[in-house]
Amino acid sequence: MQFVMDCLRVNDSGNLEMGGCDLAKVAAEFSTPAYVMDETTIRENCRVYRRSVEEFYGGNGLVLYASKALSCKAIYRIMKEEGLGVDVVSGGELYTALQADFPAEKIYFHGNNKTEEELIFALDNGVGRIVVDNRHELELLNRLAKERDKTAKILFRIKPGIDAHTHSFIQTGQIDSKFGVALETGEAEEIIRHALTLSNISVVGIHCHIGSQIFELDPFRMAAKVMLGFMAKVRDTYGLSLGELNLGGGFGIKYVEEDMPVDYEKYMEAVSQTVSEECTRLNLEKPFIVMEPGRSIVASAGLTLYTVGCIKEIPDVRTYLSVDGGMADNPRHIMYGSEYEAVLVEKPLAPADTTVTVAGRCCESGDILIQSAHLPKAEPGDILAIQATGAYHYSMASNYNRIPRPPIIMVKDGKATLAVRRETYEDILGCDL
Amino acid sequence: MQFVMDCLRVNDSGNLEMGGCDLAKVAAEFSTPAYVMDETTIRENCRVYRRSVEEFYGGNGLVLYASKALSCKAIYRIMKEEGLGVDVVSGGELYTALQADFPAEKIYFHGNNKTEEELIFALDNGVGRIVVDNRHELELLNRLAKERDKTAKILFRIKPGIDAHTHSFIQTGQIDSKFGVALETGEAEEIIRHALTLSNISVVGIHCHIGSQIFELDPFRMAAKVMLGFMAKVRDTYGLSLGELNLGGGFGIKYVEEDMPVDYEKYMEAVSQTVSEECTRLNLEKPFIVMEPGRSIVASAGLTLYTVGCIKEIPDVRTYLSVDGGMADNPRHIMYGSEYEAVLVEKPLAPADTTVTVAGRCCESGDILIQSAHLPKAEPGDILAIQATGAYHYSMASNYNRIPRPPIIMVKDGKATLAVRRETYEDILGCDL
Repeated sequence: MQFVMDCLRVNDSGNLEMGGCDLAKVAAEFSTPAYVMDETTIRENCRVYRRSVEEFYGGNGLVLYASKALSCKAIYRIMKEEGLGVDVVSGGELYTALQADFPAEKIYFHGNNKTEEELIFALDNGVGRIVVDNRHELELLNRLAKERDKTAKILFRIKPGIDAHTHSFIQTGQIDSKFGVALETGEAEEIIRHALTLSNISVVGIHCHIGSQIFELDPFRMAAKVMLGFMAKVRDTYGLSLGELNLGGGFGIKYVEEDMPVDYEKYMEAVSQTVSEECTRLNLEKPFIVMEPGRSIVASAGLTLYTVGCIKEIPDVRTYLSVDGGMADNPRHIMYGSEYEAVLVEKPLAPADTTVTVAGRCCESGDILIQSAHLPKAEPGDILAIQATGAYHYSMASNYNRIPRPPIIMVKDGKATLAVRRETYEDILGCDL
Repeated sequence: MQFVMDCLRVNDSGNLEMGGCDLAKVAAEFSTPAYVMDETTIRENCRVYRRSVEEFYGGNGLVLYASKALSCKAIYRIMKEEGLGVDVVSGGELYTALQADFPAEKIYFHGNNKTEEELIFALDNGVGRIVVDNRHELELLNRLAKERDKTAKILFRIKPGIDAHTHSFIQTGQIDSKFGVALETGEAEEIIRHALTLSNISVVGIHCHIGSQIFELDPFRMAAKVMLGFMAKVRDTYGLSLGELNLGGGFGIKYVEEDMPVDYEKYMEAVSQTVSEECTRLNLEKPFIVMEPGRSIVASAGLTLYTVGCIKEIPDVRTYLSVDGGMADNPRHIMYGSEYEAVLVEKPLAPADTTVTVAGRCCESGDILIQSAHLPKAEPGDILAIQATGAYHYSMASNYNRIPRPPIIMVKDGKATLAVRRETYEDILGCDL
């Protein structure tokens, strides 16, 4: 049995183990459903990205953890210790980062529709960069900065005309997005020209994000090339030297056996090479490079533990195996049709000779977690682990059916520690009057 | 301009009004995004259902509000006052109902995978009926009831072999569901036979639920017929008289102009007629009828108020109008591709001569609320109302991007009252350690 998560092993009791912790014991101690994360894997992923900036680009860059993948105080503390920056996409993420004492100057603030309150919050707390999405926001930000006698350091979010999907990308036409300003229509140039007339705005760079869960390097090379070409044009036209190039995230991870992600250090290697070539060609100074991995730092470090309840064999149709969680803690299957690999925690090596549909406990037909899971024969009470749930699970969880959200447990060196405690019914009713 | 919600009108100021409240003033007072609900419409919907049981079935039935559509203390209080029962699908919903002093004996407890803790919670609080889904649950419930020296009054959830979609239904084959026991395989009969051997179980009826957002009466007639046939068979085979027939919910509502829902009283009228005919034919006593409307009680009573932010015109492509909410407060578009009708609160009657895509503020391309909304020309700061969001919006809301969930404001007779207050950043961090 191969696990899609590298941090899993089978211990001497024959149980699944992560971070030196027997996951059956973790389930017994913290109950289920529960998100469990391997702290060492998270840290090692951070280090791979950081090292790649050192090794391939002389350290002239910054890795930002894209915290929408998983935002909680514990994760910002880890990012601080690992020397990463973070990007946030709302006042709530910014608040969480600040509550975790994350240094404001290493925070980048994204979003297609930041509110006035959020921009004020960001300015008042000295957020490092605001990634401005559009002209409406630009003018609002200038006014708010002026009122506070501050200068906002900004990047513009640019649509570079590259749309990367999981296994392919197209080079033009991706101007149909709610995010950013388009290169090909002249909108990007126009907003920079305008920004130069504003008193409290300092344009320090440009940003693009070409997609999610990308398994190729070429789209990133192409994006770098297009963005550098634009930087040269801005220099030539306006005499403005943009020092920062933020190429976003989107690096693919392994959800199921068939996924073949690129080693994370390869992104910086590939981009670095393109940047060197293009900067020479364009006679540009090599920019400070920012990258924004989110999913690839946390997804494969986490799994969700469930307890098996009812197992319903429908002759000649299928077998439904219901667990004590579902779309409330993992909406990705119902939203995107995402697939996962499951494993029985106490029988990780038993032959996977049955095929079941893993169903959630929510009162909704679509509440399915895995359409076809290959598992050993399971029984009620067994602990089931669904792998690679470290990103976009806790962060997207709801209280649908008024189900409390699961805790996040960090495992490391044989110790299991709560990072986020389980919600209670009282918590859920906290806003009810 | 026709509104899809009957409770909307335009007031003398030319603004949209609901429950006697100017919605622009509601937005100003409570800020946005905000769910606003017309209490009178909720109550009137309850009364239509209750009256239909009186008028067409001599009062020999009970209307349950299916509270997964919207579960909060305020709604259970209304249901109590209106004399409805409620169904709950989890310990959390049950807890909320009990906290609102809802009478336990009028609570039905559903779910395909209730946990042991939840069954204990239900037994200890004297919940009226437990709708048992499967044999695993049946035996667990019997054991738990025995340990408490109680008898659990149960219904079985049956798959009647009818699958109703919005505009059609099929009569066989719907045994591929995680819910319930199948008629056609003999599973339903077998579980009843087994239940009769259990000491602390009293089988009082059967339940089925044939789908959601159904716009026809025939599927309900057909379901009643099939279920009554099964009741007769159980009587003939086991001498067991099942007194309760619960036909579930699924009554369609008007989300967009094209939706043509049936008047709610027609369901009971149609079912009543079928029940009378079939009971005569089968020589059955007419059962106590239970119905479970959820969406149809609250959906059309609610809307969501947003403030318009960035408006992005992409020449020859489309215009994105971004609002200060999105998939975090309304995941139905990204989950099901659901469509809605929007209206500008301060220009409700202006000609809708622009077409825009209403985008959310979440950092995700798929965060769209309406693909093609026909609206008057909007400006940043305008208040946009998305109609018919009273069901499955607050209940499905998440903190994705760490965005606080909106409040629920009840409007009635010119007064706007908080039913659920807005979440704060502190609330969101409540479980963070």
